[in-house]
Amino acid sequence: MKAHVYVTLKTTVLDAQGQTIANALRRLSMTGVTAVRQGKYFVLTLDPSLDKAAAEAQVDKIAREVLTNPVIEEYSFRIEE
Amino acid sequence: MKAHVYVTLKTTVLDAQGQTIANALRRLSMTGVTAVRQGKYFVLTLDPSLDKAAAEAQVDKIAREVLTNPVIEEYSFRIEE
Repeated sequence: MKAHVYVTLKTTVLDAQGQTIANALRRLSMTGVTAVRQGKYFVLTLDPSLDKAAAEAQVDKIAREVLTNPVIEEYSFRIEE
Repeated sequence: MKAHVYVTLKTTVLDAQGQTIANALRRLSMTGVTAVRQGKYFVLTLDPSLDKAAAEAQVDKIAREVLTNPVIEEYSFRIEE
C-alpha cells in the first residue's frame, strides 16, 4: 500500500520558482501554458498490516506535522491499495 | 484545464532526501511507513483553447524536455478538465 502526498504553496503565496518555469517555457516557445506552480511530491510505502482507515489517519498526521509548513503550504494525499 | 506533473527519481537512483525523511519519521515515533521517496510536483494551468489531445502532447513535451532530468528522473502526468 502506498500513499501519495502533494504539498503546494498556498495560492496566496508567491511561487517564484513556478513563475521562473513559466517564463522559461515562454522563452523556449513552448506555448499553451498560462501559469505554473511547483510543489513537492512524496511517495510513502506503508506497512501492509495497516487497514485503510488507520493508514489515512497516519498519513494525514505525517503530512500535516512533518511534510508541510502550515504557514505557507497546504497538502493533499491519496492512498493507493 | 490543469495538468498535474509528477517527477520522481528513478527507482534505481538513491533518494537520500527520502531516506532522511523516513529516518526522521522513525525518530519521531511515527510508525507505519517503511520507505519514503521524494519528488517534484508541478501544476500547469493550460490555455483553455487547447483540446485534450493537444494538451496531452504539449504537457508530455514540457515534462520530458524541461521538467525532468532524463538521466536520473522519470515523470508521469494527468490532465484535469
